[in-house]
Amino acid sequence: MQKLPLLITTGEPAGIGMDVVLILAQEGKLQDFARPIWVTADAEAMQTRTDKLVAAGVLNICPAWQKVDAQVDAHDFIEKLSQQPTATDTDSAFILLDVPCGAPVVAGQIDINNAIMVARQLEIAHQLAASHTVAAIVTGPLQKSALIDAGIKLLDGTMFSGHTEFFMQQSGCDKVVMMLANQAMKVALVTTHLALKDVPAAITKDNVRQTVQIVLDDMQSKFGLKKPRILVCGLNPHAGEGGHLGMEEIEIINPVLQEFIAKGADISEAMPADTLFTPRHLQDCDAVIAMFHDQGLPVLKSHGFGDTVNLTLGLPYIRTSVDHGTALDLAGRGGASATSLYQALVMADEMANKTLLPA
Amino acid sequence: MQKLPLLITTGEPAGIGMDVVLILAQEGKLQDFARPIWVTADAEAMQTRTDKLVAAGVLNICPAWQKVDAQVDAHDFIEKLSQQPTATDTDSAFILLDVPCGAPVVAGQIDINNAIMVARQLEIAHQLAASHTVAAIVTGPLQKSALIDAGIKLLDGTMFSGHTEFFMQQSGCDKVVMMLANQAMKVALVTTHLALKDVPAAITKDNVRQTVQIVLDDMQSKFGLKKPRILVCGLNPHAGEGGHLGMEEIEIINPVLQEFIAKGADISEAMPADTLFTPRHLQDCDAVIAMFHDQGLPVLKSHGFGDTVNLTLGLPYIRTSVDHGTALDLAGRGGASATSLYQALVMADEMANKTLLPA
Repeated sequence: MQKLPLLITTGEPAGIGMDVVLILAQEGKLQDFARPIWVTADAEAMQTRTDKLVAAGVLNICPAWQKVDAQVDAHDFIEKLSQQPTATDTDSAFILLDVPCGAPVVAGQIDINNAIMVARQLEIAHQLAASHTVAAIVTGPLQKSALIDAGIKLLDGTMFSGHTEFFMQQSGCDKVVMMLANQAMKVALVTTHLALKDVPAAITKDNVRQTVQIVLDDMQSKFGLKKPRILVCGLNPHAGEGGHLGMEEIEIINPVLQEFIAKGADISEAMPADTLFTPRHLQDCDAVIAMFHDQGLPVLKSHGFGDTVNLTLGLPYIRTSVDHGTALDLAGRGGASATSLYQALVMADEMANKTLLPA
Repeated sequence: MQKLPLLITTGEPAGIGMDVVLILAQEGKLQDFARPIWVTADAEAMQTRTDKLVAAGVLNICPAWQKVDAQVDAHDFIEKLSQQPTATDTDSAFILLDVPCGAPVVAGQIDINNAIMVARQLEIAHQLAASHTVAAIVTGPLQKSALIDAGIKLLDGTMFSGHTEFFMQQSGCDKVVMMLANQAMKVALVTTHLALKDVPAAITKDNVRQTVQIVLDDMQSKFGLKKPRILVCGLNPHAGEGGHLGMEEIEIINPVLQEFIAKGADISEAMPADTLFTPRHLQDCDAVIAMFHDQGLPVLKSHGFGDTVNLTLGLPYIRTSVDHGTALDLAGRGGASATSLYQALVMADEMANKTLLPA
């Protein structure tokens, strides 16, 4: 049976989202996966960008793609796609799902008239993933400010605030978990982009419990691990050193972890972060849960050498992301690295091959 | 001219402090330094421990040492020592400065009657280092609770609270800085063993300014770097992202760093910790200043493979330390690793060879 596609959203058309797809296509790397690659972009802008990169000497051939109209309602669209030949049947490097822009695209120049096209890509991606038409979403970079300036709203009526919140609301999830992963380790975060002074108050039993549950569930359902082994950091230095350096481990974190241990989960109690992130312990676990951003990500990225991938756990589908921005100054000119997109595809493919979801 | 000695304090006699010295002596590793090695310990306990380790098969020879009486007042003691032959003149692996215990030593069993002997080792170490009789102090592990239970006080009359506070008060220093170092990086901390909720309030202009000044001074005076290059972490994720994730970078940290930059120091403004600790940036600096424990130490120790050394900056002499505890269950039995002591000696020797102090 044909495996389901991986879907790349190229995101902001003025940024490097299309460039990095084209670079991988030319290098033949989109063929590294035994799956069709689908790409959301404006077909005309993709052609213009290709020409620009050929002229700049970044591409020496024009990669072949097959264009499909994505401007139909979701149901018809999916039906139509299911009847299309896939990339693996043809010489095409990918199938381009054409999502037309509102205004002509100029590489490097944000035009808020194109914000709605960026949001439309995410909507299409959500529909295709939620209906198991694609195995995973791999998101390219968008410019959050452009969507906010254009007044793009989330389902709950609040202003657009990012890919993660968008997919979360579309999926009806109350909570998702940010995980970063590379060859060295996988780290999930209880809190993410919070000022440090606001972190302790955000370490509640509910938050810790939901995070642990999502990590355990997704390590099973999306990574195919029957009994994942999870190590958890304390909030304080030395995990509070028995209460001498903070009480959160004793009052909040460990009671929650003990609930999971009592139910048979293979999870540690709160460990000192500077002990946990050593080879001896990392070799012994499938994922780490850190309490806050700068406890987990510096150590992960220090081992990453550019191959770090951002995952969203808790969604009803697999979503990985590049870890770079739109890099407007590099769009259409060369200098953009496609490593992060490639790694995000590798991770999505690996997960799709192991997931218990249709893939 | 004869180089000055490195002084090891073996610390708690019931712990593995003596064991690790004996292991390095047997392996011939105390001869790796072009300096005499001096060791504070109870001579009788050292002989008993040697016999025990030979019987246990941990040592196959009894290392040779030369014993010197350390129970005289500091001035006479130093004079006497300066007339002694040093280890490099003899077959001895080290010179043992005999500091008698108050009670017989039983490996693995703390006896508070020996706490005063532990404190006396530190006093001797301070006197020898402050008078430039030794080039550096390398401290073995002590059991803080034993000194507290025995009522050992610091100079200011408060209860004993650790090596660092002891040397700080003896030296008349208001502030010292904890630095951890291994082959991968050197990380100094603005705050150390504080509950996370107390960290933001401790990030004051004075604290940041004093820490930076000590790091800059000591990278020059103790590492011999004419113009050290220092990178500094922000307090918040993404270094506050222009105020969106916390104001401490804008209000406190960067104004202080700009003072140093204006005076010509080669120091960064506040950087996102998950960007700073990547090879590209680390290759470009001599030391990192992190704002708190779990921002800097997990990443450092993850690259350490057991060779991490603890340094105290801001003292008028070089002090390094093992990064392990007394490991009472291993004393006299084997199983203790001497790697950390060896690395602490290597670091002390490297610094002594580069320092602008007498060494």
